[in-house]
Amino acid sequence: MKVLGVDPGSAATGFGVVEADARGALRLIECGVIRPAPKSTLASRLQQIHADLTALLDRHAPDVLAVEDAFHGRNARTTLVLGHARGVILLAGAQAGVIIAEYPPAVIKKAVTGRGAAMKPQVGFMVARLLRLSKPPEPSDAADGVAVALTHLLRGGRPALVQLARSPA
Amino acid sequence: MKVLGVDPGSAATGFGVVEADARGALRLIECGVIRPAPKSTLASRLQQIHADLTALLDRHAPDVLAVEDAFHGRNARTTLVLGHARGVILLAGAQAGVIIAEYPPAVIKKAVTGRGAAMKPQVGFMVARLLRLSKPPEPSDAADGVAVALTHLLRGGRPALVQLARSPA
Repeated sequence: MKVLGVDPGSAATGFGVVEADARGALRLIECGVIRPAPKSTLASRLQQIHADLTALLDRHAPDVLAVEDAFHGRNARTTLVLGHARGVILLAGAQAGVIIAEYPPAVIKKAVTGRGAAMKPQVGFMVARLLRLSKPPEPSDAADGVAVALTHLLRGGRPALVQLARSPA
Repeated sequence: MKVLGVDPGSAATGFGVVEADARGALRLIECGVIRPAPKSTLASRLQQIHADLTALLDRHAPDVLAVEDAFHGRNARTTLVLGHARGVILLAGAQAGVIIAEYPPAVIKKAVTGRGAAMKPQVGFMVARLLRLSKPPEPSDAADGVAVALTHLLRGGRPALVQLARSPA
Protein backbone atom coordinates (compact mmCIF):
# COMPACT_ATOMS: atom_id res chain seq x y z
CA MET A 1 0.00 0.00 0.00
CA LYS A 2 1.28 3.44 -0.94
CA VAL A 3 0.21 6.53 0.99
CA LEU A 4 0.71 10.22 0.21
CA GLY A 5 0.71 12.11 3.50
CA VAL A 6 0.15 15.86 3.58
CA ASP A 7 0.55 18.41 6.37
CA PRO A 8 -1.17 21.58 5.08
CA GLY A 9 0.11 24.91 6.30
CA SER A 10 -0.72 28.51 5.55
CA ALA A 11 2.90 29.12 4.38
CA ALA A 12 4.31 25.65 3.61
CA THR A 13 2.68 22.30 2.91
CA GLY A 14 4.79 19.25 3.75
CA PHE A 15 4.30 15.91 2.02
CA GLY A 16 5.70 12.40 2.12
CA VAL A 17 5.09 9.26 0.07
CA VAL A 18 5.52 6.05 2.03
CA GLU A 19 5.00 2.48 0.89
CA ALA A 20 4.40 -0.63 2.99
CA ASP A 21 5.27 -3.93 1.34
CA ALA A 22 3.37 -7.19 1.87
CA ARG A 23 5.38 -7.92 5.04
CA GLY A 24 4.65 -4.45 6.42
CA ALA A 25 8.14 -3.06 5.82
CA LEU A 26 7.99 0.72 5.42
CA ARG A 27 9.90 2.63 2.75
CA LEU A 28 10.11 6.37 2.10
CA ILE A 29 9.70 7.07 -1.61
CA GLU A 30 9.74 10.87 -1.67
CA CYS A 31 9.18 13.80 0.62
CA GLY A 32 9.37 17.55 0.41
CA VAL A 33 7.61 20.85 0.84
CA ILE A 34 5.31 22.87 -1.39
CA ARG A 35 6.16 26.47 -0.62
CA PRO A 36 4.39 28.94 -2.93
CA ALA A 37 6.01 32.33 -3.46
CA PRO A 38 5.02 34.30 -0.33
CA LYS A 39 4.54 37.55 -2.25
CA SER A 40 2.09 36.07 -4.75
CA THR A 41 -1.66 36.34 -4.26
CA LEU A 42 -3.58 33.82 -2.22
CA ALA A 43 -5.30 32.58 -5.39
CA SER A 44 -1.94 32.00 -7.10
CA ARG A 45 -0.56 30.20 -4.07
CA LEU A 46 -3.62 27.95 -3.99
CA GLN A 47 -3.18 27.27 -7.70
CA GLN A 48 0.40 26.16 -7.09
CA ILE A 49 -0.53 23.91 -4.16
CA HIS A 50 -3.30 22.32 -6.22
CA ALA A 51 -1.06 21.84 -9.28
CA ASP A 52 1.82 20.36 -7.24
CA LEU A 53 -0.49 18.02 -5.33
CA THR A 54 -2.14 16.90 -8.55
CA ALA A 55 1.31 16.20 -10.04
CA LEU A 56 2.29 14.13 -6.96
CA LEU A 57 -0.95 12.13 -7.18
CA ASP A 58 -0.33 11.50 -10.89
CA ARG A 59 3.31 10.52 -10.43
CA HIS A 60 2.93 8.19 -7.44
CA ALA A 61 -0.66 6.97 -7.87
CA PRO A 62 -1.03 6.40 -4.11
CA ASP A 63 -3.83 4.24 -2.72
CA VAL A 64 -4.61 6.80 -0.07
CA LEU A 65 -4.24 10.55 0.46
CA ALA A 66 -3.77 11.11 4.21
CA VAL A 67 -4.22 14.71 5.38
CA GLU A 68 -3.67 16.32 8.76
CA ASP A 69 -6.92 17.69 10.13
CA ALA A 70 -5.90 20.81 12.05
CA PHE A 71 -8.49 23.27 13.17
CA HIS A 72 -7.72 24.60 16.60
CA GLY A 73 -5.23 26.67 18.53
CA ARG A 74 -4.81 29.31 15.84
CA ASN A 75 -6.36 32.70 15.23
CA ALA A 76 -9.33 33.08 12.91
CA ARG A 77 -7.33 34.53 10.01
CA THR A 78 -4.69 31.77 10.09
CA THR A 79 -7.41 29.14 10.40
CA LEU A 80 -9.20 30.58 7.36
CA VAL A 81 -6.03 30.60 5.23
CA LEU A 82 -5.18 27.07 6.36
CA GLY A 83 -8.70 26.09 5.34
CA HIS A 84 -8.07 27.46 1.83
CA ALA A 85 -4.97 25.27 1.49
CA ARG A 86 -6.75 22.17 2.83
CA GLY A 87 -9.63 22.88 0.45
CA VAL A 88 -7.53 22.64 -2.71
CA ILE A 89 -5.65 19.60 -1.29
CA LEU A 90 -8.88 17.68 -0.63
CA LEU A 91 -10.11 18.80 -4.06
CA ALA A 92 -7.00 17.36 -5.74
CA GLY A 93 -7.62 14.06 -3.94
CA ALA A 94 -11.29 13.96 -4.92
CA GLN A 95 -10.41 14.76 -8.54
CA ALA A 96 -7.82 11.95 -8.55
CA GLY A 97 -10.42 9.55 -7.15
CA VAL A 98 -8.24 8.33 -4.25
CA ILE A 99 -9.43 7.43 -0.77
CA ILE A 100 -8.93 10.40 1.57
CA ALA A 101 -8.15 9.84 5.24
CA GLU A 102 -7.91 12.65 7.80
CA TYR A 103 -6.03 12.52 11.09
CA PRO A 104 -5.98 15.09 13.92
CA PRO A 105 -2.51 16.27 14.99
CA ALA A 106 -2.61 14.41 18.30
CA VAL A 107 -3.42 11.10 16.57
CA ILE A 108 -0.43 11.57 14.24
CA LYS A 109 1.95 12.34 17.11
CA LYS A 110 0.62 9.41 19.12
CA ALA A 111 0.97 7.02 16.14
CA VAL A 112 4.61 7.87 15.39
CA THR A 113 5.94 8.70 18.90
CA GLY A 114 3.51 7.01 21.30
CA ARG A 115 2.67 10.40 22.78
CA GLY A 116 -0.11 12.71 21.56
CA ALA A 117 1.61 15.81 22.91
CA ALA A 118 5.04 15.06 21.39
CA MET A 119 7.16 18.00 20.22
CA LYS A 120 8.24 18.52 16.60
CA PRO A 121 11.85 17.22 16.97
CA GLN A 122 10.58 13.97 18.46
CA VAL A 123 8.27 13.48 15.47
CA GLY A 124 11.24 13.96 13.09
CA PHE A 125 13.40 11.60 15.17
CA MET A 126 10.80 8.83 15.13
CA VAL A 127 10.04 9.31 11.43
CA ALA A 128 13.75 8.70 10.76
CA ARG A 129 13.84 5.68 13.07
CA LEU A 130 10.71 4.06 11.59
CA LEU A 131 12.01 4.51 8.04
CA ARG A 132 15.65 3.65 8.89
CA LEU A 133 16.89 7.04 7.71
CA SER A 134 20.22 8.40 8.95
CA LYS A 135 18.52 11.64 10.00
CA PRO A 136 15.04 13.23 10.05
CA PRO A 137 13.72 14.53 6.72
CA GLU A 138 14.26 18.28 6.36
CA PRO A 139 12.74 20.76 6.63
CA SER A 140 10.49 19.71 9.51
CA ASP A 141 7.38 20.34 7.37
CA ALA A 142 8.51 17.48 5.12
CA ALA A 143 8.95 15.22 8.16
CA ASP A 144 5.44 16.19 9.28
CA GLY A 145 4.06 15.16 5.88
CA VAL A 146 5.85 11.81 6.16
CA ALA A 147 4.42 11.40 9.68
CA VAL A 148 0.88 11.72 8.30
CA ALA A 149 1.54 8.97 5.75
CA LEU A 150 3.14 6.78 8.44
CA THR A 151 0.13 7.30 10.69
CA HIS A 152 -2.17 5.76 8.11
CA LEU A 153 0.09 2.74 7.64
CA LEU A 154 0.89 2.24 11.35
CA ARG A 155 -2.79 2.30 12.24
CA GLY A 156 -3.39 -0.40 9.65
CA GLY A 157 -5.36 1.94 7.43
CA ARG A 158 -7.96 2.72 10.06
CA PRO A 159 -8.21 6.50 9.83
CA ALA A 160 -9.96 8.67 12.37
CA LEU A 161 -12.14 9.83 9.50
CA VAL A 162 -12.22 8.35 6.02
CA GLN A 163 -13.62 10.20 3.07
CA LEU A 164 -14.49 8.09 0.08
CA ALA A 165 -13.87 10.43 -2.82
CA ARG A 166 -16.51 10.77 -5.49
CA SER A 167 -15.19 9.38 -8.75
CA PRO A 168 -13.69 12.05 -11.02
CA ALA A 169 -16.32 13.92 -13.02
CA MET B 1 -18.19 44.87 -17.60
CA LYS B 2 -19.47 41.53 -16.36
CA VAL B 3 -18.92 40.41 -12.77
CA LEU B 4 -19.49 37.02 -11.14
CA GLY B 5 -20.12 37.62 -7.44
CA VAL B 6 -19.79 34.78 -4.95
CA ASP B 7 -20.78 34.52 -1.29
CA PRO B 8 -19.04 31.36 -0.04
CA GLY B 9 -20.67 29.45 2.79
CA SER B 10 -19.96 26.24 4.64
CA ALA B 11 -23.35 24.84 3.55
CA ALA B 12 -24.44 26.96 0.56
CA THR B 13 -22.53 29.22 -1.82
CA GLY B 14 -24.59 32.00 -3.42
CA PHE B 15 -23.64 33.52 -6.76
CA GLY B 16 -24.83 36.23 -9.11
CA VAL B 17 -23.72 37.42 -12.55
CA VAL B 18 -24.30 41.14 -13.14
CA GLU B 19 -23.40 43.22 -16.18
CA ALA B 20 -22.97 46.98 -16.43
CA ASP B 21 -23.39 48.45 -19.89
CA ALA B 22 -21.43 51.43 -21.25
CA ARG B 23 -23.88 53.86 -19.59
CA GLY B 24 -23.55 52.07 -16.24
CA ALA B 25 -26.99 50.42 -16.39
CA LEU B 26 -26.98 47.24 -14.30
CA ARG B 27 -28.53 43.97 -15.44
CA LEU B 28 -28.84 40.65 -13.61
CA ILE B 29 -27.88 37.81 -15.93
CA GLU B 30 -28.11 34.81 -13.61
CA CYS B 31 -28.10 34.01 -9.93
CA GLY B 32 -28.45 30.94 -7.78
CA VAL B 33 -26.99 28.76 -5.09
CA ILE B 34 -24.47 25.92 -5.15
CA ARG B 35 -25.62 23.57 -2.45
CA PRO B 36 -23.65 20.31 -2.38
CA ALA B 37 -25.36 17.24 -0.93
CA PRO B 38 -25.01 17.72 2.85
CA LYS B 39 -24.41 14.01 3.51
CA SER B 40 -21.51 13.75 1.06
CA THR B 41 -17.90 14.06 2.21
CA LEU B 42 -16.18 17.40 2.49
CA ALA B 43 -13.92 16.50 -0.44
CA SER B 44 -16.92 15.66 -2.64
CA ARG B 45 -18.67 18.89 -1.68
CA LEU B 46 -15.54 20.87 -2.55
CA GLN B 47 -15.34 19.05 -5.88
CA GLN B 48 -18.91 20.07 -6.66
CA ILE B 49 -18.34 23.71 -5.69
CA HIS B 50 -15.19 23.83 -7.83
CA ALA B 51 -16.88 22.15 -10.81
CA ASP B 52 -19.96 24.39 -10.64
CA LEU B 53 -17.86 27.57 -10.29
CA THR B 54 -15.65 26.51 -13.19
CA ALA B 55 -18.76 25.92 -15.30
CA LEU B 56 -20.11 29.40 -14.41
CA LEU B 57 -16.77 31.01 -15.31
CA ASP B 58 -16.75 29.13 -18.63
CA ARG B 59 -20.37 29.96 -19.48
CA HIS B 60 -20.33 33.67 -18.60
CA ALA B 61 -16.64 34.57 -19.13
CA PRO B 62 -16.85 37.40 -16.55
CA ASP B 63 -14.19 40.11 -16.42
CA VAL B 64 -13.99 39.81 -12.66
CA LEU B 65 -14.65 37.21 -9.97
CA ALA B 66 -15.75 39.09 -6.82
CA VAL B 67 -15.69 37.05 -3.60
CA GLU B 68 -16.87 37.88 -0.11
CA ASP B 69 -13.96 37.87 2.31
CA ALA B 70 -15.44 36.62 5.58
CA PHE B 71 -13.22 35.57 8.40
CA HIS B 72 -14.63 36.67 11.70
CA GLY B 73 -17.51 36.10 14.07
CA ARG B 74 -17.61 32.35 13.60
CA ASN B 75 -16.18 29.44 15.51
CA ALA B 76 -12.89 27.85 14.44
CA ARG B 77 -14.49 24.77 12.85
CA THR B 78 -16.95 26.82 10.77
CA THR B 79 -14.16 29.20 9.76
CA LEU B 80 -12.01 26.27 8.64
CA VAL B 81 -14.79 24.73 6.53
CA LEU B 82 -15.61 28.13 5.04
CA GLY B 83 -11.92 28.46 4.21
CA HIS B 84 -12.05 25.15 2.29
CA ALA B 85 -14.93 26.47 0.16
CA ARG B 86 -13.22 29.81 -0.47
CA GLY B 87 -10.04 27.93 -1.39
CA VAL B 88 -11.60 26.02 -4.27
CA ILE B 89 -13.50 29.15 -5.40
CA LEU B 90 -10.32 31.25 -5.60
CA LEU B 91 -8.61 28.31 -7.32
CA ALA B 92 -11.32 28.19 -9.99
CA GLY B 93 -10.83 31.92 -10.59
CA ALA B 94 -7.04 31.58 -10.82
CA GLN B 95 -7.38 28.63 -13.21
CA ALA B 96 -9.76 30.68 -15.39
CA GLY B 97 -7.29 33.57 -15.41
CA VAL B 98 -9.83 36.21 -14.32
CA ILE B 99 -9.17 39.15 -12.03
CA ILE B 100 -10.21 38.29 -8.48
CA ALA B 101 -11.53 40.99 -6.14
CA GLU B 102 -12.34 40.39 -2.48
CA TYR B 103 -14.71 42.45 -0.34
CA PRO B 104 -15.36 42.23 3.40
CA PRO B 105 -19.02 41.78 4.42
CA ALA B 106 -19.35 45.32 5.80
CA VAL B 107 -18.09 46.83 2.53
CA ILE B 108 -20.68 44.84 0.58
CA LYS B 109 -23.53 45.90 2.87
CA LYS B 110 -22.39 49.50 2.76
CA ALA B 111 -22.11 49.48 -1.05
CA VAL B 112 -25.63 48.14 -1.67
CA THR B 113 -27.55 49.63 1.28
CA GLY B 114 -25.44 52.57 2.44
CA ARG B 115 -25.03 50.93 5.84
CA GLY B 116 -22.22 48.52 6.82
CA ALA B 117 -24.32 46.88 9.52
CA ALA B 118 -27.42 46.29 7.36
CA MET B 119 -29.50 43.16 7.98
CA LYS B 120 -30.00 40.44 5.36
CA PRO B 121 -33.55 41.45 4.27
CA GLN B 122 -32.36 44.99 3.55
CA VAL B 123 -29.59 43.62 1.33
CA GLY B 124 -32.14 41.60 -0.64
CA PHE B 125 -34.47 44.59 -0.89
CA MET B 126 -31.75 46.88 -2.24
CA VAL B 127 -30.44 44.22 -4.65
CA ALA B 128 -33.95 44.05 -6.13
CA ARG B 129 -34.24 47.84 -6.30
CA LEU B 130 -30.82 48.35 -7.93
CA LEU B 131 -31.55 45.72 -10.56
CA ARG B 132 -35.22 46.69 -11.04
CA LEU B 133 -36.46 43.24 -10.02
CA SER B 134 -40.00 42.75 -8.76
CA LYS B 135 -38.69 41.01 -5.63
CA PRO B 136 -35.36 40.01 -4.04
CA PRO B 137 -33.60 37.00 -5.55
CA GLU B 138 -34.26 33.85 -3.54
CA PRO B 139 -32.95 32.15 -1.53
CA SER B 140 -31.15 34.92 0.35
CA ASP B 141 -27.78 33.28 -0.38
CA ALA B 142 -28.36 34.01 -4.08
CA ALA B 143 -29.16 37.65 -3.25
CA ASP B 144 -25.92 37.80 -1.24
CA GLY B 145 -23.96 36.54 -4.24
CA VAL B 146 -25.59 39.22 -6.43
CA ALA B 147 -24.71 41.83 -3.79
CA VAL B 148 -21.02 40.92 -4.06
CA ALA B 149 -21.11 41.43 -7.85
CA LEU B 150 -23.00 44.71 -7.43
CA THR B 151 -20.42 45.90 -4.91
CA HIS B 152 -17.65 45.61 -7.47
CA LEU B 153 -19.64 47.54 -10.08
CA LEU B 154 -21.00 50.22 -7.70
CA ARG B 155 -17.52 50.92 -6.41
CA GLY B 156 -16.37 51.43 -9.97
CA GLY B 157 -14.18 48.33 -9.89
CA ARG B 158 -12.10 49.55 -6.97
CA PRO B 159 -12.04 46.51 -4.74
CA ALA B 160 -10.86 46.48 -1.15
CA LEU B 161 -8.30 43.92 -2.23
CA VAL B 162 -7.59 42.88 -5.80
CA GLN B 163 -5.83 39.68 -6.67
CA LEU B 164 -4.41 39.51 -10.15
CA ALA B 165 -4.67 35.86 -10.99
CA ARG B 166 -1.67 34.09 -12.41
CA SER B 167 -2.43 33.06 -15.98
CA PRO B 168 -3.64 29.45 -16.27
CA ALA B 169 -0.82 26.87 -16.20
